[in-house]
Amino acid sequence: MKTNPHVKRQQQLHQILKQERLNALALNPGPDLSYLTGLDFHLMERPVLGLFRSGQNPVLILPELEMGKLADLPFSIQSFPYGEDRSTWPRAFENAFLQAGLRKGRVGIIPRRLRVLELRFLEAAASNLDFVDGQKAMSTLRILKDQHEIKSMQKAADVAQHAFQAIRPLIKPGITEKEIAAALVSSLFDEGSDPGLPFFPIVSFGSNSANPHAMPTDRPWDERQLVLIDWGATVDGYYSDITRTWRTGDVDKELLEIAKVVQGANQAGREAVQPGILCSEVDRRVREVIEKSGYGEYFIHRTGHGLGREAHEEPYIASDDHTPLKAGMTFTIEPGIYLPGCGGVRIEDDILVTEGGCRSFTDLPRELRVL
Amino acid sequence: MKTNPHVKRQQQLHQILKQERLNALALNPGPDLSYLTGLDFHLMERPVLGLFRSGQNPVLILPELEMGKLADLPFSIQSFPYGEDRSTWPRAFENAFLQAGLRKGRVGIIPRRLRVLELRFLEAAASNLDFVDGQKAMSTLRILKDQHEIKSMQKAADVAQHAFQAIRPLIKPGITEKEIAAALVSSLFDEGSDPGLPFFPIVSFGSNSANPHAMPTDRPWDERQLVLIDWGATVDGYYSDITRTWRTGDVDKELLEIAKVVQGANQAGREAVQPGILCSEVDRRVREVIEKSGYGEYFIHRTGHGLGREAHEEPYIASDDHTPLKAGMTFTIEPGIYLPGCGGVRIEDDILVTEGGCRSFTDLPRELRVL
Repeated sequence: MKTNPHVKRQQQLHQILKQERLNALALNPGPDLSYLTGLDFHLMERPVLGLFRSGQNPVLILPELEMGKLADLPFSIQSFPYGEDRSTWPRAFENAFLQAGLRKGRVGIIPRRLRVLELRFLEAAASNLDFVDGQKAMSTLRILKDQHEIKSMQKAADVAQHAFQAIRPLIKPGITEKEIAAALVSSLFDEGSDPGLPFFPIVSFGSNSANPHAMPTDRPWDERQLVLIDWGATVDGYYSDITRTWRTGDVDKELLEIAKVVQGANQAGREAVQPGILCSEVDRRVREVIEKSGYGEYFIHRTGHGLGREAHEEPYIASDDHTPLKAGMTFTIEPGIYLPGCGGVRIEDDILVTEGGCRSFTDLPRELRVL
Repeated sequence: MKTNPHVKRQQQLHQILKQERLNALALNPGPDLSYLTGLDFHLMERPVLGLFRSGQNPVLILPELEMGKLADLPFSIQSFPYGEDRSTWPRAFENAFLQAGLRKGRVGIIPRRLRVLELRFLEAAASNLDFVDGQKAMSTLRILKDQHEIKSMQKAADVAQHAFQAIRPLIKPGITEKEIAAALVSSLFDEGSDPGLPFFPIVSFGSNSANPHAMPTDRPWDERQLVLIDWGATVDGYYSDITRTWRTGDVDKELLEIAKVVQGANQAGREAVQPGILCSEVDRRVREVIEKSGYGEYFIHRTGHGLGREAHEEPYIASDDHTPLKAGMTFTIEPGIYLPGCGGVRIEDDILVTEGGCRSFTDLPRELRVL
């Protein structure tokens, strides 16, 4: 019989907790909790918290009205539900820690996910515990993707690429950034994306494309502008994240030039990837291409970020991340050059490290094509 | 000349900070920061923080690659950008507090928005400051909606209702919960919703509708089941949030009965709303209707929540919120009865308190209609 993936991950976590000298890990709703349990909750004013200990069943503090989600779980869970009266919430946390036998020691938390809301309940319920950064425990567990996860990521890339191809004929002079983004969202669902997209598509024309995190506006596209689109799909909870830049007709010569440089940098990055090389070294090789072209100061971000159940996760393809790559790691390679007031080009692919080098989940043409 | 709304709100905040004896308010990206500045940022591993003090320009700590968003702001801002090297981030926070002249005193934070990530940077940069719950300051500012906000919320309700009417013919036996949800999302964008929806639609058939926060599944609809849909649109950053329940043909008699009770409870809630009445009293009157019917134990949540730039905000129509209603407040009235294993009915409207009573932004028929 195959072990349920969530049970398997909980067992693996138990080993990692020992290595990291953690008595427990405390997780609020989000990618870590769903990775370990398959459970999803809205992140609102009612706190939800999972407690994971070595060799014990998970403990869950949650609103009564969410108890329906615990039916049919393939593992045992100790639940501490609370009602709508907020004055009773601290007691649910206290009881959970008491029953979990957690009185002193180190409890890992995830600083970029846990809110002060949950932290205060934790601190009040268990004043003798140290709440420490538990990111490494979760990253160690999640950084190597298994075959099932890899398959989902390939599908998420396929869905994203097909969704773009389906709306490509719509992109004509006069259409607005927001209209393209809305059409792309519809198309992503038509092609089979899960409900929660990794992020709302970035669609930016002309000078707006010089802002790497631009929000789509009502500006209409004129033919002499570049169009940069950064989008992704979700399949079984796993993300894709791809960027391409296009033109229709003549654009400024310098934009053609930077597009070539970025394409070369993207290629250098993909060629550098293999087991054993450091993330920081991949970043250096990509950056070198852009620096040699004279545009170094306009490549204002790192080369890429880990990708999986989160749009940004470990490892980071950045100068300060010295993680050696291993087969099974997944991340983006996304060099860009941004000329303020003029325009920007970014080319982003989703990469899997393999025993022999790497494979790109994304394969739409990378040159500055005419739409 | 009309004062820019963000400038006006910053000025109002200065008064409230004095009332609340706060030296400053520290906000990470989200509805509070965008309410005060119009600025949006992704909430990721790079911290962004705005500091607001009485009678001074806002201070903003942010990644260099987001600096483009500060062009063309209608007010002055002191920015403290940091680069991609994470070891330099603490210095940006220290410099910001130093330049802001914040050495000791009370700084408000929003516990259900601020993450431990930002809290730790704050604590390290300014160890003599007390970081206290600043939710009341923001709620005081945001709880009364102005004419512009009310107009946006009415539009958001109209978009949501039109979007549903457009896909209504698609809902036929055999369609799945996920298919309806995806079609509704497309339709919301077609009708003019902003990019970020308040939440992904809840579409639940039969026994799944007994779970108030169900996620859409691949189960197909059979004619004898109820279908509960809870959805909303976004216009100019403001949300709508509506729930209706339908049937096609015959359903269990008890489901017809609870639908009538919920409709009566919804009506009692809308009739109770007027300036001066307490939120808890509105909740009591709604609950009374359901309790008298004998289904009290199956109404497992509060009557409603504030609505505006957030899907849940203050005030809460709940037994423990004793806020007296004032004209300009906006919230949901959403009683429900959930029979485990069988089905649930919820009827949710978006309510504005007026001088004379209330107005419902939403007005789709409330009875258990045949689709």
